[in-house]
Amino acid sequence: MTDVDDYLERWAVLRSRAVAAGAQGLAIGTGKDLAYLTGHGGQSWERLTAVVAATAPDTGPALFITPKLEAEGITAIPEVFTFAPWEDSDDPIALAVPELPARGRILVSDGLPSQHLLALQRALPGAEFLALNETLGGMRALKTAAERQALRTVGGLVDLVHDQIRNGEVPLVGRSELEVQDDVRRRLLAVGHETVEFVIVASGPNSASPHHHPGDRVIQAHEMVLFDFGGSLNGFNSDMTRCVFTGPIPDDVGDAWASLREAQELAFRAAQPGARLGDVDLAARSSLEAAGYGPEFIHRTGHGIGTEVHEHPYVTSNNDQSIEVGHAFSIEPGIYRVGKWGMRLEDIVVIDDDGPVRCNNTDRDLANVGSD
Amino acid sequence: MTDVDDYLERWAVLRSRAVAAGAQGLAIGTGKDLAYLTGHGGQSWERLTAVVAATAPDTGPALFITPKLEAEGITAIPEVFTFAPWEDSDDPIALAVPELPARGRILVSDGLPSQHLLALQRALPGAEFLALNETLGGMRALKTAAERQALRTVGGLVDLVHDQIRNGEVPLVGRSELEVQDDVRRRLLAVGHETVEFVIVASGPNSASPHHHPGDRVIQAHEMVLFDFGGSLNGFNSDMTRCVFTGPIPDDVGDAWASLREAQELAFRAAQPGARLGDVDLAARSSLEAAGYGPEFIHRTGHGIGTEVHEHPYVTSNNDQSIEVGHAFSIEPGIYRVGKWGMRLEDIVVIDDDGPVRCNNTDRDLANVGSD
Repeated sequence: MTDVDDYLERWAVLRSRAVAAGAQGLAIGTGKDLAYLTGHGGQSWERLTAVVAATAPDTGPALFITPKLEAEGITAIPEVFTFAPWEDSDDPIALAVPELPARGRILVSDGLPSQHLLALQRALPGAEFLALNETLGGMRALKTAAERQALRTVGGLVDLVHDQIRNGEVPLVGRSELEVQDDVRRRLLAVGHETVEFVIVASGPNSASPHHHPGDRVIQAHEMVLFDFGGSLNGFNSDMTRCVFTGPIPDDVGDAWASLREAQELAFRAAQPGARLGDVDLAARSSLEAAGYGPEFIHRTGHGIGTEVHEHPYVTSNNDQSIEVGHAFSIEPGIYRVGKWGMRLEDIVVIDDDGPVRCNNTDRDLANVGSD
Repeated sequence: MTDVDDYLERWAVLRSRAVAAGAQGLAIGTGKDLAYLTGHGGQSWERLTAVVAATAPDTGPALFITPKLEAEGITAIPEVFTFAPWEDSDDPIALAVPELPARGRILVSDGLPSQHLLALQRALPGAEFLALNETLGGMRALKTAAERQALRTVGGLVDLVHDQIRNGEVPLVGRSELEVQDDVRRRLLAVGHETVEFVIVASGPNSASPHHHPGDRVIQAHEMVLFDFGGSLNGFNSDMTRCVFTGPIPDDVGDAWASLREAQELAFRAAQPGARLGDVDLAARSSLEAAGYGPEFIHRTGHGIGTEVHEHPYVTSNNDQSIEVGHAFSIEPGIYRVGKWGMRLEDIVVIDDDGPVRCNNTDRDLANVGSD
């Protein structure tokens, strides 16, 4: 799926953005950033696994440093990177140092474990180390048209499972959260996801905990059930939240949902190229505050998404970064009434030339899936 | 299982070792180090999750900084730590700074992601940051008698599964590595492990890759099959390697195995309190070199083990650290003949007052599990 030209293009874009940020070196550790640049995410946190490179555009291939005994399956792409396997008696930091500027600015990926960063800092005391993702606003934050299409495709898959829940095809009342979680897992794969990344099923008062871990609690009639789940296809992730109610919707719940839906719509409309990311958060936040739900909206409005479920850019009130064509992030305000219920409404949005486009299109109302 | 007194004892030991290393502050990020000190490992890499503390013995409880929406299930232990949940609009670094010395030495756990370490360094430009585990030779490296007993108990469980393989109870020839891996997983749980941490099944030439990922290859008669697997019980891990041959053992393979067994025994005998960890590696290495297998032993002799499968101390030729009572590590030399076969023999060893004790006791010969 990703060919040599794709990798060369990614490196060219990264080097040019790094040069614009005044950086002379790059050090990318284990994880999705490494996979994006080389096709291999690495296995080890304990043994140094990193690609290091200078940023100048005429620099040759990067250097991929990896433990020899984890080298299975990694083939150099000579135009993109050469390969430096090291043995346990070697010092891998000594392999990295000649590739990096002794007194320049070096951008470091979040995936480089701190013990390796400290070792690099000790070996290069004249260099200045900065967080790559923070400095560039996310190495993988600007998606190509093909990457945005991949997010739309996988978003269409997760839509199907939410539809099944809303249509009553997934029994809820009388089953435990864990049983329903398992059912949802199977459905995510059945509709075409290649992996399941996470499945939150939060019932009744548990729905008031945004990152609830599903447990043995049995779902009752006449309560909220919050579903937030996602999986991946071709490396790109879905992530979507809808809520259902197992019975007629009480007035206080219905009123809150109407405000939540309005807040999510206003945030979506604020997500225009050139606008401030923080203003997307503030659009949702001020709408919920005006409706009296401000203290019950206890998290940011969203997070970037791509080959990781959470990545840059983050939709927080204090993010002054501008929205750019190619950004992809969630818009997911919530209202959490501790001890009673919680609700969240989440779609993934990609920014195209003519504005924001949702990747999820399942109905946004609060469905009554009860028998009465 | 772990009570308040255990945590207080762990903190007292850690602070005293840190003071001896000249450190005034501690910053412990997501992972097993955090769980060891608080009972909670944290969930998030992206949002700062860390316990920070001064090292002076009369310091009060540590401060546990965690994202508010992941605070579910974390209860402060007032004698051990107080709790500082933060919201997405807060700056968590500002919570950490008052707890840490502005110009002292701060020890940082490997689990603190580099973006958070860089942010702490920026907020405390006069402080010196060092890798905690490297500085102290492993925060969790010195096991109590109870922790050593936990390693022996879980070692006894993994013994049982290797016995089943060697007794021919696990069909091999005609099944894929993945099928056998799945069978071994179920057996690890059936004998009493609470989790399965990893299962390597490497057949024929695949056994020459030390960290082989099991695949579709079907196991044949008359070849090597390497088994390296482990799981956990009460948080402590097993990890053990044995090999079998699916037919009569050829002379070259038998000769290599005899040398490997001798090397593993010599390394075990070298693991005496007060000896150098590097000398355990060298005992195995020089024995294999003398027998002509030196170039085919391509990794270190072992790694520490406890609540993580790989942790300090590491048994590498260049580790000058002394072996202490309480250390627990693997002794696992191997011989890898690329394209033909590989072999490894691994036991976990704990260091008691009167010397090393193996946690694994399954026979150490190379078993013929073929039908002829």
